[in-house]
Amino acid sequence: MIDIQSLKIRRKKLANLIDIPAVLWSGKSPSRNFRANHYPFRASSHFLYFAGITLENAAIKLDNGNLDLFLDNSHSDSSLWYGEMPTREDIAQQIGADNAYPMNALKEQINEVATIPVQDIFTYGKQREILQRSLSINKDLKKIDEQLMKAIISLRLTHDKTALEEIKKAVDVSVKAHKIGIKSTKKSTTEAQVRAAIESYIISKNMTCAYNSIVTINGEILHNETYDNQLKPGDLLLADVGAETSLGWASDITRTWPVSGKFSSSQRDIYDIVLAAHDVCIEGMKPGVEYRDIHLLGAKVIAEGLVDLGILKGHPESLVEKDTHAIFFPHGIGHLLGLDVHDMEDLGDLAGYQEGRTRSDRFGLGYLRLDRPLKVGMLVTIEPGFYQVPAILNNPKFQEKYYNDVNWDKLKQFSDVRGIRIEDDVLVTETGAEILTKNLPNKAIDIEEMMK
Amino acid sequence: MIDIQSLKIRRKKLANLIDIPAVLWSGKSPSRNFRANHYPFRASSHFLYFAGITLENAAIKLDNGNLDLFLDNSHSDSSLWYGEMPTREDIAQQIGADNAYPMNALKEQINEVATIPVQDIFTYGKQREILQRSLSINKDLKKIDEQLMKAIISLRLTHDKTALEEIKKAVDVSVKAHKIGIKSTKKSTTEAQVRAAIESYIISKNMTCAYNSIVTINGEILHNETYDNQLKPGDLLLADVGAETSLGWASDITRTWPVSGKFSSSQRDIYDIVLAAHDVCIEGMKPGVEYRDIHLLGAKVIAEGLVDLGILKGHPESLVEKDTHAIFFPHGIGHLLGLDVHDMEDLGDLAGYQEGRTRSDRFGLGYLRLDRPLKVGMLVTIEPGFYQVPAILNNPKFQEKYYNDVNWDKLKQFSDVRGIRIEDDVLVTETGAEILTKNLPNKAIDIEEMMK
Repeated sequence: MIDIQSLKIRRKKLANLIDIPAVLWSGKSPSRNFRANHYPFRASSHFLYFAGITLENAAIKLDNGNLDLFLDNSHSDSSLWYGEMPTREDIAQQIGADNAYPMNALKEQINEVATIPVQDIFTYGKQREILQRSLSINKDLKKIDEQLMKAIISLRLTHDKTALEEIKKAVDVSVKAHKIGIKSTKKSTTEAQVRAAIESYIISKNMTCAYNSIVTINGEILHNETYDNQLKPGDLLLADVGAETSLGWASDITRTWPVSGKFSSSQRDIYDIVLAAHDVCIEGMKPGVEYRDIHLLGAKVIAEGLVDLGILKGHPESLVEKDTHAIFFPHGIGHLLGLDVHDMEDLGDLAGYQEGRTRSDRFGLGYLRLDRPLKVGMLVTIEPGFYQVPAILNNPKFQEKYYNDVNWDKLKQFSDVRGIRIEDDVLVTETGAEILTKNLPNKAIDIEEMMK
Repeated sequence: MIDIQSLKIRRKKLANLIDIPAVLWSGKSPSRNFRANHYPFRASSHFLYFAGITLENAAIKLDNGNLDLFLDNSHSDSSLWYGEMPTREDIAQQIGADNAYPMNALKEQINEVATIPVQDIFTYGKQREILQRSLSINKDLKKIDEQLMKAIISLRLTHDKTALEEIKKAVDVSVKAHKIGIKSTKKSTTEAQVRAAIESYIISKNMTCAYNSIVTINGEILHNETYDNQLKPGDLLLADVGAETSLGWASDITRTWPVSGKFSSSQRDIYDIVLAAHDVCIEGMKPGVEYRDIHLLGAKVIAEGLVDLGILKGHPESLVEKDTHAIFFPHGIGHLLGLDVHDMEDLGDLAGYQEGRTRSDRFGLGYLRLDRPLKVGMLVTIEPGFYQVPAILNNPKFQEKYYNDVNWDKLKQFSDVRGIRIEDDVLVTETGAEILTKNLPNKAIDIEEMMK
């Protein structure tokens, strides 16, 4: 399962980028309603990248290509509750560690080491206590931590073979799970039932969900995490669900399909525009191309389609310049994908944004999570969408600004299109791009066929 | 959904027990691999008990029967991502609050208030910051906090009609989920597939799991949370899974069944002993009876059964006095059940143990989570078990102490029994006890019938 050689190469590559030793903590599962009732543990992604294995309450020291493991053996008492655990030495061997120590040996080895704060607040407290200094990813960011972050980003920005093998496992399970969800819809009466069908397959493969699933007839609520609606025949159902392997690698897929098995003509018209944007974006991907330009390309195709349908008025390019597309497509075209579903977003925009770049304050660009030139081995999502968001469409500021750009009467003919998104996981290759999720159909006709 | 009258009665009852005002926080969902990727939110149980609704980042002040809600309205930006949220005033009305304020009004109202620390460490930090004092459930426990805890315990220790209605919803879904799991086993090849079948039904009913499911052929690992084993025909499968309603009320059920659909004679022999202990314990329950005696009764029935089988040697009662039963039944007979699956275990043993009582240091009693006389409306689990735990059976200390009590050769004939547990949710009534989970068969013959 664990490819030690590949882990050692990652450690060596890091050593080629920085001179300072680094310590990374794995974290601890947070409590739910009392300590023994904890959330499922998820190790810090930076830890996983170099240690290759999920270990709770562990730390690794990376120094000059070597890895030292810090981990306490489990109490003898805990073998009653959790079974016989591998010893620290067993685990060290399993992950190709050079040395293994109990946790309390760590504080003797932390002179001038770089680190990255973990998400788990308990361990974050421990980190600060042991290092005896502040930890931040923002304004108080220490120089050495910043160097470490930038070095890790430059490694994790493109994926090695081992990573891609894991990601493909997550992708395969997610593709099958979506197919099951699509096929289950006609015999389902609630969002929750379709969610159950999708997640059930992921659980059956001993994977977890990489993020809280979105399975909703209210696709216009972008991060909708409730599942209590009844399905009605005229509804579109939007499902954004991705599996994560036991080693922590993620996938991220969205499909939108008609509850009845048949798109209405208005739904089909908009669906085809979103799909066209999706296809053009992926066709436009190759090394060196700016992801921001892919986003703007997607926006232009959506604007063109909406002009053709009579919903927007004017020239697609000038509509995009005015951010008119963002009334209906208010988010970014996608993001990095890897160990995190928004890969390395724990580092703010440090990973997503090329050095020297910052978020735009344009309505149509500000939500873009990635602004870098594409590189071979980079994995991104491409996820254009169309949404009728009441908070936007009913906002007097937008109504006024875009009054003449939108045919508001025409728009009413599309009231059965609340939210559509089509999202695939796309790898940048030498010659262009490879859709890792290509086994999941996305053409309207193929989806209808699957539902028959 | 929310029964305001019942919430108001709970608030009034609290006011009858304490004079000091209390502030309870709901908490915040912890991050998973980056902030936007959070674990599903679960509000603090004490908050849920009086507020009756899941609200993130909220607080309530309970004073003389009144409830004031502290909650910030969501940012206008967030309606794009999360849809239109109800306002603070809407929510206040929904839960029968007397006043509603933004969060920053709280710090003006916290002169000498009692509180209970939440599990979520971020909010715990906020609690300490706002109250400007330490918070603990152990040695530094403040007198007023202790008074509040004891008052809440005395309320939550027995369940009102509203609570029981919710718990019964969770029970019904859990019962059906277990039936689906049992029936799915013969066509499953892995633990993960059976887990998927069980949890899928819970998800389809828009409920969550009250705790991390145990679905394992290694039932002797008491808190086994891995699901990666293949099922083999001679295995027993142990599933400890319970649903939780959207208002936070839990259920907790364990069944053990043969992968092949048919218990071996050795498995059946032990199963019937565990079931006999289960039945005798429940028959022995009525108001006034000590739960600790129920535990010892269960232990005695297990010892008797094992003597009859020739695994133990001697008189059952003296075997129990020596804790010999605990070699095979090392945990307690059960625990309180309510909003938490181990109800109020966030308060340590303050809820589980009658005032003045502490944990026994006896091997056969120390893991007992509840040591109180039963009262009408108290809901407990009854969950005897038999396990062959290597950490116990291979421990020289136990081998020596119990050398003459165990027929070690005879025991070898039962090597296909690694772990059996039968767990039901049982309510104390005026005349005895009601098994809320009675619709899920537990007789060996009925389970075999279900699997045909």
